Amino acid sequence: MNSRFLLYTVASLTAKASRRNLYFSVKMASPSGRKLLNMDNINPNVLTMEYAVRGPIVIRAAEIEKELAQGAKKPFKTVIKANIGDAHAMGQKPITFIREVLACLANPSLIEKGIYAEDVNEHARTILNACGGRSAGAYSQSNGIEIIRKHVAEYICRRDGGIPSNPENIVLSGGASESIRNILKLFINCKGKKPAGVMIPIPQYPLYSATVEEYGLGQVGYYLDEDNNWALSVKELKRALEANKDKYDVRVLCVINPGNPTGQVLSQQNIEEIIKFAYKHKLFLLADEVYQDNIYAEGCAFHSFKKVMTNLGEPYSKMELASFHSASKGYMGECGMRGGYVEVMNMCPEVFAQFKKMISAKLCSTVLGQAVMDCITNPPKPGDPSYKRWLEEKTATLKSLKERAKLVQKAFDSVDGVKCNPVQGAMYAFPQITMPPKAIEEAKASSLKIGKPADFYYAMKLVEETGVCIVPGSGFGQKAGTYHFRTTILPQPNVMKDMLQRFTAFHEKFLKEHS
Amino acid sequence: MNSRFLLYTVASLTAKASRRNLYFSVKMASPSGRKLLNMDNINPNVLTMEYAVRGPIVIRAAEIEKELAQGAKKPFKTVIKANIGDAHAMGQKPITFIREVLACLANPSLIEKGIYAEDVNEHARTILNACGGRSAGAYSQSNGIEIIRKHVAEYICRRDGGIPSNPENIVLSGGASESIRNILKLFINCKGKKPAGVMIPIPQYPLYSATVEEYGLGQVGYYLDEDNNWALSVKELKRALEANKDKYDVRVLCVINPGNPTGQVLSQQNIEEIIKFAYKHKLFLLADEVYQDNIYAEGCAFHSFKKVMTNLGEPYSKMELASFHSASKGYMGECGMRGGYVEVMNMCPEVFAQFKKMISAKLCSTVLGQAVMDCITNPPKPGDPSYKRWLEEKTATLKSLKERAKLVQKAFDSVDGVKCNPVQGAMYAFPQITMPPKAIEEAKASSLKIGKPADFYYAMKLVEETGVCIVPGSGFGQKAGTYHFRTTILPQPNVMKDMLQRFTAFHEKFLKEHS
Repeated sequence: MNSRFLLYTVASLTAKASRRNLYFSVKMASPSGRKLLNMDNINPNVLTMEYAVRGPIVIRAAEIEKELAQGAKKPFKTVIKANIGDAHAMGQKPITFIREVLACLANPSLIEKGIYAEDVNEHARTILNACGGRSAGAYSQSNGIEIIRKHVAEYICRRDGGIPSNPENIVLSGGASESIRNILKLFINCKGKKPAGVMIPIPQYPLYSATVEEYGLGQVGYYLDEDNNWALSVKELKRALEANKDKYDVRVLCVINPGNPTGQVLSQQNIEEIIKFAYKHKLFLLADEVYQDNIYAEGCAFHSFKKVMTNLGEPYSKMELASFHSASKGYMGECGMRGGYVEVMNMCPEVFAQFKKMISAKLCSTVLGQAVMDCITNPPKPGDPSYKRWLEEKTATLKSLKERAKLVQKAFDSVDGVKCNPVQGAMYAFPQITMPPKAIEEAKASSLKIGKPADFYYAMKLVEETGVCIVPGSGFGQKAGTYHFRTTILPQPNVMKDMLQRFTAFHEKFLKEHS
Repeated sequence: MNSRFLLYTVASLTAKASRRNLYFSVKMASPSGRKLLNMDNINPNVLTMEYAVRGPIVIRAAEIEKELAQGAKKPFKTVIKANIGDAHAMGQKPITFIREVLACLANPSLIEKGIYAEDVNEHARTILNACGGRSAGAYSQSNGIEIIRKHVAEYICRRDGGIPSNPENIVLSGGASESIRNILKLFINCKGKKPAGVMIPIPQYPLYSATVEEYGLGQVGYYLDEDNNWALSVKELKRALEANKDKYDVRVLCVINPGNPTGQVLSQQNIEEIIKFAYKHKLFLLADEVYQDNIYAEGCAFHSFKKVMTNLGEPYSKMELASFHSASKGYMGECGMRGGYVEVMNMCPEVFAQFKKMISAKLCSTVLGQAVMDCITNPPKPGDPSYKRWLEEKTATLKSLKERAKLVQKAFDSVDGVKCNPVQGAMYAFPQITMPPKAIEEAKASSLKIGKPADFYYAMKLVEETGVCIVPGSGFGQKAGTYHFRTTILPQPNVMKDMLQRFTAFHEKFLKEHS
């Protein structure tokens, strides 16, 4: 097992531990001597950044899948990828309306042929009329097609009970990740001052830790309260801020709501406290709200930071905020299409102009991805020919996700040595494992070489022995001495049942082997 | 005129000149006092980066277009956007085969309906089979769908006369820009050492200068020889390297072939010299080859850096090289789709693993953009039902571009006070204007406030008075005391004729007014 571990993890070893070993292999691999670009002179932030959602466990899962396809004999026949919020890959069907509009944009002759309902054609015509040369192959404005930004603004206004949204404050992007990275980029300080500190939840979605690391910013983690269903407490925000303010110039507060990987949904009152905290401590707010459609628990509702902030009135309503949304999650799950947006509120106009200048060098995000965002924010209306089917598909998907959210939590929570908070929203459960001391020791022994904690060891064994691919908690951050993993709730019900069976059997065996 | 200038250019003012003015407006705009993120604490590299292809002239052109649409009376009825290589926006038709495949990927029920030819269906099926859940809405591998990378590698092998290409060395991206930025990112040095120097041609495509600035790298410009049809001389490479080696650790040599904005096509012999220069001076080669299909001049041919390097044998064939290609240019012009790739050669395997880890945090590029790249690199073959139409469309587009390349050069070169080198390839002409001294003075007077040179003044007057939008040479870099502009060759023949007439009349008037 150890030699295998070493193999899988080379790609994402943390820098310091691996430098010496890697030198060796570089020299071996290169007949012409040292490479010009090598592990010694590569961007050091690239070396240290980590993105566990696509890390070594996932790389190994893909290898196992190939081995199975090539006829390898294993105690399981399929790999179950519960590592990433990739709904279609797990069998969720696309929303037909979105896809019909895309087909018309790709090949407008379908409009003339009258293959689809008239509202589909009309929708496609509206977007094509806004494209250069009436082609989705033309570059759009860097901030996105104007009519789509208008539809996004109207959607936000409806969502927030009538609070206006200005299309000029919307910037479309290739998924929410791109917008999040673009906003964080504004805070890079390369003039030798203290790095800007970015407050992020722990556990967090590793896009944040990876981007903070890549940009040379300072990670200021605040812990979510697992015993209190992953609640976000202002007291903990304050502790984290105090503990880091000498080291960093703390300037940004990121909140993920609903939570990833933790699945909690913030109450309006909690959001009000967070906003007041940010105001008091002069923090720029980043609200990652990509799971706004994914609310399952009774009594929970999505409240946008913008709405709560606006309703609080001045001075809070004048605070600087960036809110993100995505085409990849919700009921649509169009990850591969790369659609998303940021709405900026109260940003300094000159800074916003600089932001738009900065993104212009990347030309524009994919026009078809923008079109997906359009379909999401401007869907069929009652009476439209496509409305009924659209509503049925949307409702069925959300209903099924809700059922699986409950199923997953119950199933994991019932396993001996595993506890799992309710999945109030988003697409993940983040169960805690009571790790046997012997497993911690064994993982430590192997991690002398690979620098990975016990939950990594657990997850690698799980995928190796059962084909179930989850992400170890250490990839998201967790309190020292605790061990978790993230699983999506996306496997279809029959696969989910299979996955839970494989998991339970593995876990019992693991406990026995390490008791 | 001056007050207008001030207005248009606020967004892209260079940092130092504008700081004081901007403070003022920030204070005015913000009732709650200073913004948390303001012009004083924004990422300083964002302030100083420039991307002229979408700069203030272009912003003004879009405003004029809106004014016309709202009924404003001007001495012209349309804006002609010759600022950007955006083929479809200028009336070029998409390649039908590409679009039919995309339509099937978006809405696979079209395959079952048998609307398109069987090779279209088959092509779409192959890609869908490689997608998670057989949906283009699933994330792909971060480096792109495997079968598409295989087709790209096969294309490269055919292009280079049988020199093999490994799909594992291909990384698909959202346009070539994303790959270029990702590769350059590896050279960022944030440990307080000398910044890595990146050699770029002057004139250059401003993605390079913008990215070098954003990343805090060092720009090492080498001049192309205008009197010798924008030739790239090794003597000048050496001069530039020597002049900058104290300031920067010069590590990268970028070459754009065919040239943007200069349109020259490098000979095999010239490429050999460049490769030997890079070898001698330990430079990592970046070959921007996105215009590889756009060769017009008699006697010119495209030679890839990879082919020339490989044919030179060792030690050159072992050099580190990154070569870029795009779906946005060539005969397809699918800019809005965002497809592109990089092929890396001889990269240190551990560095390449780090590269792939780095891009994994961005999840993947658009699957439909990847599919466009697939259609380009794996087009219909003789005998396939779509072959004839595909070949006709491709041939007609390239033939028309070739005609316009000649037309544009001849027309500009015949204007008094303008000279223009032949457009051997790519999509642009970069004519030189003999600027009247009075115009330089007037521009200087206005540029006290706006910090812009005479060719900016010229280009802003041109768009204001004629609706013709071109990009001033200062946005690309040019020898001190010379003035140029970049125009695309993309306007359709009738528009091109109109544009050349408007331009000639303006230029004569400009010379008179400033004599």
